[in-house]
Amino acid sequence: MTVPGKLYLVPAPLDFGCDTQTALDRVLPAGTLAEAARLSQWICENARSARAYLKRVGELHPLASPLQGLCFQELPREVHKKGDHGPSSFDARPLLAPALAGGDMGLLSEAGMPAVADPGASVVRAAHELGIEVVPLVGPVSLLLALAASGLSGQSFAFVGYIPQDADARTRRIKELESLALRTGQTQIFIETPYRNAALLDALVRTLQHNTRLAVASGLTLEDAIIRSQTVRQWRQRIQAPELPAVYAIGR
Amino acid sequence: MTVPGKLYLVPAPLDFGCDTQTALDRVLPAGTLAEAARLSQWICENARSARAYLKRVGELHPLASPLQGLCFQELPREVHKKGDHGPSSFDARPLLAPALAGGDMGLLSEAGMPAVADPGASVVRAAHELGIEVVPLVGPVSLLLALAASGLSGQSFAFVGYIPQDADARTRRIKELESLALRTGQTQIFIETPYRNAALLDALVRTLQHNTRLAVASGLTLEDAIIRSQTVRQWRQRIQAPELPAVYAIGR
Repeated sequence: MTVPGKLYLVPAPLDFGCDTQTALDRVLPAGTLAEAARLSQWICENARSARAYLKRVGELHPLASPLQGLCFQELPREVHKKGDHGPSSFDARPLLAPALAGGDMGLLSEAGMPAVADPGASVVRAAHELGIEVVPLVGPVSLLLALAASGLSGQSFAFVGYIPQDADARTRRIKELESLALRTGQTQIFIETPYRNAALLDALVRTLQHNTRLAVASGLTLEDAIIRSQTVRQWRQRIQAPELPAVYAIGR
Repeated sequence: MTVPGKLYLVPAPLDFGCDTQTALDRVLPAGTLAEAARLSQWICENARSARAYLKRVGELHPLASPLQGLCFQELPREVHKKGDHGPSSFDARPLLAPALAGGDMGLLSEAGMPAVADPGASVVRAAHELGIEVVPLVGPVSLLLALAASGLSGQSFAFVGYIPQDADARTRRIKELESLALRTGQTQIFIETPYRNAALLDALVRTLQHNTRLAVASGLTLEDAIIRSQTVRQWRQRIQAPELPAVYAIGR
């Protein structure tokens, strides 16, 4: 019987879509780069950006196979949008055929850690079902960098994804999260895309109570990193929405 | 007026207290190691282990100051136990005097990322209050590695710390977390120390429903890493408690 290969969860830098790119060894351990350089079978969101990432890896650690010889399987499009974390999500087992045949594989997302605020959970779950060992590698995770840099509680926290876009639903959700954070002490973390940062920050500053603490982080690990953490009263004196994807955290 | 220095959040490897140590560059980017090697003013939980860590860093990146010249301020003992995440926690501002005088400083915890499931939030909060820039560096975070490797939802999750030790309170808490995870789809993550892993795992397997998914991770990034993720029904067929500090996650 063939011993199956392993599934490596390979983190990517947080500079996706940015004008300037980070040197990979500033944010990825040599151990992670060496493993990534060794793998030739990949599962990813987008083959083109996965190839571009591995080209950058190859500049630091020679790739075991030439770029042209790497094999990329893309996660289906609906997974990018809706996520693939539910038990009734699509069946990722066929993607893992190369691992069942004995080869190691890599799972890669567009930025940060696969399966954390990004697709990939269905692949990891399928690996467990098939008896394929899962090996998470170290790299940047924007949520956790933001939480650590916020000064809010890291002993109890929740990541809740995106806030609704509809104004009324957004206000209700913000109040609900604030109430939870103040009552239980559980820091509430959420994310927003660049073009909605201004609307979200405006709603937060209008809706939250004076003394609630709000932290906003964007571009962490990049040249133009921003991390501001202060009370809503202080935010009101100077509101400036970030221009990159941002992580928000509220707490007491 | 003196321009203040920055506060770097410096991650540590996850091998604290283990028999064999990880090569630092397997889990810490060269960028993180280079910043750590440059800093001479430190805030830490324990000066002795901080010095041991920097000795290891120095073997890869020459330290800017000799080990004997590094300055370590320890967080007060009550902070280690109770945490320092509350607004009424101790006042960490005096610890940051070297930064106010213009020098860069490092904040270090015993393992993983400072201020995430570890003390440090009070120092970060004080830095924001004093206008000291906070720079989180990339390194291993056991909670996030475990979550990614669990195959449970990383689109919505909560870290809730430790589960009560008292048997009745423990059962109640496990049921409460399971109900939350199944109802809302929010993965519930918690941690346990080695000598209580057997009792906790036993309680989980007895209390949770057949089809609930339970993931247990320990020693991630180390030689003897374990990550098992399966239904409670499957767990019942072979219960084996990890011997290292462990991360637990339940979800649907």
